[in-house]
Amino acid sequence: MATDPVYLSNRGNSIRQNQGILQESYAQYAMDKHHGTENPDGIINMATSENKLCYDLLHKRLTKPDMLYISPSLLQYSDWRAHTFLREEVAKFLTHYCRSPKPLKADNVVVMNGCSSLFSCIAAVICDPKDVILIPTPFYGIITEDLHLYSDVKLFHVPLDCEADGKDGRPFHLTVGKLEEGLKRAKQQGLTIRAVILMNPHNPLAEIYTPEEMIAFLEFAKRNELHSIVDEVYMLTVFDEHVVFHSVLSVDSLPDAQRTHVMWGMSKDFAMAGTRLGTLYTENNDLLEAMAQLGSFHGISGTTQHQVAQLLKDREWISEDFLPENRCKLKAAHSYLTGELQSIGVPYLDRPASLYVWADFRESTFEEELSLWRRFLRHKVVLSCGQAFFCSTPGWFRIVFSDQHLHLQLGQSVVSVLYDLLKTNEESDKSVEEDSAESDNAAVVNSTSSPHSKSSDQQKEKDSPVPDTGSLATKEFVLQDCQASKPTDSLDSLIGTLRHQIHASDWLEKNTPELSAGEDPEILDVFKALLQSARK
Amino acid sequence: MATDPVYLSNRGNSIRQNQGILQESYAQYAMDKHHGTENPDGIINMATSENKLCYDLLHKRLTKPDMLYISPSLLQYSDWRAHTFLREEVAKFLTHYCRSPKPLKADNVVVMNGCSSLFSCIAAVICDPKDVILIPTPFYGIITEDLHLYSDVKLFHVPLDCEADGKDGRPFHLTVGKLEEGLKRAKQQGLTIRAVILMNPHNPLAEIYTPEEMIAFLEFAKRNELHSIVDEVYMLTVFDEHVVFHSVLSVDSLPDAQRTHVMWGMSKDFAMAGTRLGTLYTENNDLLEAMAQLGSFHGISGTTQHQVAQLLKDREWISEDFLPENRCKLKAAHSYLTGELQSIGVPYLDRPASLYVWADFRESTFEEELSLWRRFLRHKVVLSCGQAFFCSTPGWFRIVFSDQHLHLQLGQSVVSVLYDLLKTNEESDKSVEEDSAESDNAAVVNSTSSPHSKSSDQQKEKDSPVPDTGSLATKEFVLQDCQASKPTDSLDSLIGTLRHQIHASDWLEKNTPELSAGEDPEILDVFKALLQSARK
Repeated sequence: MATDPVYLSNRGNSIRQNQGILQESYAQYAMDKHHGTENPDGIINMATSENKLCYDLLHKRLTKPDMLYISPSLLQYSDWRAHTFLREEVAKFLTHYCRSPKPLKADNVVVMNGCSSLFSCIAAVICDPKDVILIPTPFYGIITEDLHLYSDVKLFHVPLDCEADGKDGRPFHLTVGKLEEGLKRAKQQGLTIRAVILMNPHNPLAEIYTPEEMIAFLEFAKRNELHSIVDEVYMLTVFDEHVVFHSVLSVDSLPDAQRTHVMWGMSKDFAMAGTRLGTLYTENNDLLEAMAQLGSFHGISGTTQHQVAQLLKDREWISEDFLPENRCKLKAAHSYLTGELQSIGVPYLDRPASLYVWADFRESTFEEELSLWRRFLRHKVVLSCGQAFFCSTPGWFRIVFSDQHLHLQLGQSVVSVLYDLLKTNEESDKSVEEDSAESDNAAVVNSTSSPHSKSSDQQKEKDSPVPDTGSLATKEFVLQDCQASKPTDSLDSLIGTLRHQIHASDWLEKNTPELSAGEDPEILDVFKALLQSARK
Repeated sequence: MATDPVYLSNRGNSIRQNQGILQESYAQYAMDKHHGTENPDGIINMATSENKLCYDLLHKRLTKPDMLYISPSLLQYSDWRAHTFLREEVAKFLTHYCRSPKPLKADNVVVMNGCSSLFSCIAAVICDPKDVILIPTPFYGIITEDLHLYSDVKLFHVPLDCEADGKDGRPFHLTVGKLEEGLKRAKQQGLTIRAVILMNPHNPLAEIYTPEEMIAFLEFAKRNELHSIVDEVYMLTVFDEHVVFHSVLSVDSLPDAQRTHVMWGMSKDFAMAGTRLGTLYTENNDLLEAMAQLGSFHGISGTTQHQVAQLLKDREWISEDFLPENRCKLKAAHSYLTGELQSIGVPYLDRPASLYVWADFRESTFEEELSLWRRFLRHKVVLSCGQAFFCSTPGWFRIVFSDQHLHLQLGQSVVSVLYDLLKTNEESDKSVEEDSAESDNAAVVNSTSSPHSKSSDQQKEKDSPVPDTGSLATKEFVLQDCQASKPTDSLDSLIGTLRHQIHASDWLEKNTPELSAGEDPEILDVFKALLQSARK
């Protein structure tokens, strides 16, 4: 049915039309999820930050008999901050894993159905409509909607530069100076600034800030009477045993405890985004009371509260089973992805945390970045591009690596092939055009590839209106039917196809090979090697 | 810690301070819940509309093995309108139990964590801030917060009169004429009116509207281009088998399907308020799309979605076990409560639906009503008073009867004793003062008691500032220690105490007897009989 804006209010129409790149990515993926046998030509999702490596562990724990429990109070209305038993377990859990010097209190905990809800609530109670909150960019873009949709609060961006600044600097280096500068600009614009959002480990940079850095940021907030909203949802997702993450809850005496609010949740560290559970720890009673009033909009099923409490109190399972195995799997997946990026010469930030890598496919404009994002999507791989995170330099992408190895291989192979092709075209262009590709002085790790301009053909594609990726994909995407034949047959067939078609201008665009999950994963590697050599 | 308003915004402070009578009732109760052995002098809750009669049935079903199920997708992000499997089960369930002439569609279903969330979302997308929605009074007061806290939408009240109007009229009779009149008044005030809320069965009236009435209301909405938000959360809570409830989803052709949105949920009909699950059915795609955008704030755990889907698809359990037994228990509890009300001469609306009775303890002012409410609370029984539902006549109370028999007996006995005492005092006052107690021509069912004025003593109590009920209760409330002695001993002791003290002016105020759940429930009845005769 055609849209008739008369049904909704102005606000409603604006909410309805709110569709960013991240939402679109997920929507495309949701309609056409890759599945080894049921939908082998579906989309590989390297955009959504989810950990899909620990399902076996979780399944085992979550189907134990203690999870199937019902009591009258679980079926009845309860405290909107969550049942006491759950808040107590959260307090104990945070005390232990955040290494708090004193026991954290259940009364300082609010549990809601996810961190989006917590962001929305906090914004509603510390800000009036149109107030702003400072945030360094790039950042996990969904926070924009979390603060705006209900609570009408805007973010004020503090851009971090991808170039390292000075001898101690890092790419995207967050400093107090930059925060001060951002605050000054916001004030000059007459805005009311109420808070700063600090993410540690960072999303999408995967940066881990030291206690000294975090305290400096909190001191900045204190000096300026800003609340600090500290998002630590990746605190246990650190996969290098030599790196220690320091929660602000481990700090003996916070600069401004009444204005420091710490978020955590089950989505990332426990790979349970579908459980919808986020926690807030704060000593500010006013905030706690106000949040409780909004709790009726963000309640969690009593049975889910029970299950999460059981999980959080099972310290043995967490520390001896889940975390070590999770770290090991994350490390392997991270190694694989970064190895692949290195092999195609894509720079990235090498960080031992989170579920993603922040990689530099440097482009000249955000239009080009979006075009590359669309090209990946047309070839059935969805990534998150930098502009969805308000990155100030075009061409950065967040690539999620915490997926089954075959998905990761398939996705990464498409990325590699497309990127290789891009580079090849570009190099041949360069010899003809000799145009102004400047040298890349970004202090990124592991590579020194240079930015590239695009051929006029590619440019044309990029300038065309947003394609209907759903139908386009169906038209352009011809699946290599590897299932119908034995692996060796399909390899022969692939080689033949490759030999004949590889030099046709847009063959790779039109025929991204895909191997089903049911097949021998090695085929993919072989295929890739063949692809490389065939192109020479 | 003392409140420092500097931490929160103006909006935040106003949210924090939002504390109505219903919220206060629940907060008091939550701090001091009655329990037979662990807290025998705790508060009996006859205020919160929860069904506590079916726990055994639910426990049995909810601990069956099919409830303990985990799949990868349940642990991952999903469609914010809910998983398809759940929306499909909701559509099938509503098709069957609402007797829809054609199968309802999963795509027209949104599932969120409770009906408060649905109200908040609908308000956000069909209204701009400060717009209003029409609602007949009395109504379930929490809707005020549901629409206002996040979405800044106000209700415009259409008062219904407790007196029957004309020969076909009923008390609190909702008519199209009254809606038209309300709309006219709202327009005269320059307000933008976007919708009307219709509850069927009604809360707190328990009124069941006929299909003809509902269609007339929907026609009114259509004529005036208003959305109709139809709340049917009590649709299966009809306990007279001769009465058939008609959902608007059973209507062949709705007057304005694009503006008709039907709410239902698990809280009332399945006695699972703690599960936090509400459903919306609408054919309006704009609304569905806009609601989906807000869904990230109102998500439900994947495992809970699975459990509810299992329950809803178990048609045999619902229709052959749960509903018949639930109806039977509700009918018995309703009979008991209404019998007690009759015996003390309190008029009430006799309706075969819902979990509560709307009863007439007629008072002259809302201050007096509030004072009576406080008096009940001081004696450890919490009810909901009419002003919490914006009733236009003082003295009406909503009494929830769907609790274990002993709780119901204990609560009702306190209500009866206090009310009897009130009447006795009043009658003796009357003979002295002969003041202006007007005759009661309210067309309420089952009684013709007249309104009463209060003695000056009582009036003094009422005019005193709001007491700290918690501490007052502790001071005033002396528990009869029935547990320490055998039933007969405690009866003897009670009789003795009664004989000596019953004529002291405020003895009942100070010494409400209470019997623990561990004792023979008959004691209570005996005690009550004794109390009656002792006072003669």
